Amino acid sequence: MSDARPIGVFDSGLGGLTAVRELFQALPQESVVYFGDTARLPYGSKSGETVTRFSLEIASFLVRHDVKCLLVACNTASSYALDTLTKRLEIPVVGVIQPAVSAAIAASPHGRIGLIGTLGTIGSGAYASAIQRQAPASRVVARACPLFVPLIEEGWLTHPVTRQVAEEYLAELRTAGLESLILGCTHYPLITPLIGELIGPSVRLVDSGAEAARATAVMLRERDLLAAGSPRHQFYVSDQPRNFDRIARSFLGRPIPPTTVVDQTDLPWFERVPAP
Amino acid sequence: MSDARPIGVFDSGLGGLTAVRELFQALPQESVVYFGDTARLPYGSKSGETVTRFSLEIASFLVRHDVKCLLVACNTASSYALDTLTKRLEIPVVGVIQPAVSAAIAASPHGRIGLIGTLGTIGSGAYASAIQRQAPASRVVARACPLFVPLIEEGWLTHPVTRQVAEEYLAELRTAGLESLILGCTHYPLITPLIGELIGPSVRLVDSGAEAARATAVMLRERDLLAAGSPRHQFYVSDQPRNFDRIARSFLGRPIPPTTVVDQTDLPWFERVPAP
Repeated sequence: MSDARPIGVFDSGLGGLTAVRELFQALPQESVVYFGDTARLPYGSKSGETVTRFSLEIASFLVRHDVKCLLVACNTASSYALDTLTKRLEIPVVGVIQPAVSAAIAASPHGRIGLIGTLGTIGSGAYASAIQRQAPASRVVARACPLFVPLIEEGWLTHPVTRQVAEEYLAELRTAGLESLILGCTHYPLITPLIGELIGPSVRLVDSGAEAARATAVMLRERDLLAAGSPRHQFYVSDQPRNFDRIARSFLGRPIPPTTVVDQTDLPWFERVPAP
Repeated sequence: MSDARPIGVFDSGLGGLTAVRELFQALPQESVVYFGDTARLPYGSKSGETVTRFSLEIASFLVRHDVKCLLVACNTASSYALDTLTKRLEIPVVGVIQPAVSAAIAASPHGRIGLIGTLGTIGSGAYASAIQRQAPASRVVARACPLFVPLIEEGWLTHPVTRQVAEEYLAELRTAGLESLILGCTHYPLITPLIGELIGPSVRLVDSGAEAARATAVMLRERDLLAAGSPRHQFYVSDQPRNFDRIARSFLGRPIPPTTVVDQTDLPWFERVPAP
């Protein structure tokens, strides 16, 4: 038995393409429908109410594209909206938090876990709660890193300024005796070399997008929902911003295929999207 | 004769409050209705189509609040959407570009004008065109500074990293023999001391929001539209993000009054706003 319906993936912008890259590797026969909310990004500094509203709108759009499951490849959206999405949707929903938490706990025998992310991801406490539930003896050291996303979008991956910002953000984490560090934002894999150098080789870096992609693969296998045959991918964004191609390629690891810009001028914007 | 209707002001977020601060000083009897699109900020990296669409939506909202004129206190929106707004609206529309250009030209006898702003403001060429029209012999040196806004929102106004970023962004401008430098983003007045120190005391810094506020005062006076009596201000945002109060106060120069969050869940969101 196989299920040819696509996997729905969304992010506030293009960072979620790091998860799609992992999906392509783990599940080369699966089709993906991606939505990046580039007109309204970033989510990291916005309120839980607004991020939840945006997430529900995008989920509606993807459900209309007949996805068999939803991968929320945005840490801020996973932090605020995962429960609501899970309750409202009839398809399985995978967020980035639980998979990353499981990987971090497995890599941290003494429970010394670090976490970096946006203001929203850190402020929501979603990661800390998930870790406490699963490994109550753990000690979590968390730090919001709001400048990492704009620095990465500026393309300053190895710039001295990015190093200086990272040294400041990671100062406390570097002396905390960590066993693992959760990269709680799908942008951060692009500066893994810098983070790894500063935090030291003994700390396992957990890529939340990659872990979520692998968790999606496990879930589809368990539920007998895997596809067979040749995949057909679709990419949607709410805006085609400046530097779009450069940024998309940096996350996806290859040039991004033709992408549809979804207008949302009036009314329930997802209703005005032509059927694919 | 007097006109008690409020002045409508909008920005992608809270930076436009630097213009409101100037309005309060120049026109203490005027009422202001402010809208900050904090759910969808920033505009600086987004496409002209999207920024124009957002601007039209917000203008509709403000027109429903019976504003007598519209001050577009966002450089990116002024760059992309001013012509469309002027054509579509029946009230006078003031952007930040023309007032700043006039001030820069007046301060630059040899026409050596610098310009800094977002990717959208610089990339649109709106400032350069306006300068060429008014002073064709001028030489404009422009530079996009996309990290200034996130650094300012992080509160790093005097942080060494901000200085290092500014040194890199302003390197060419510092050796260009400028007579004036247009601060083409309403966030930048918060780092005026740093910019002034790097660019030198002989360069006149032009605050685009303040110039636009003064141009609004002149326009209202000329058209006999000034208010008499005691003002009543209203502040709206599309999201109440993290650090809202701190950021708002830094721009407005005093604590922000009670602010209404305008939900935009479905349908023409401006239609769902209760009458003020």
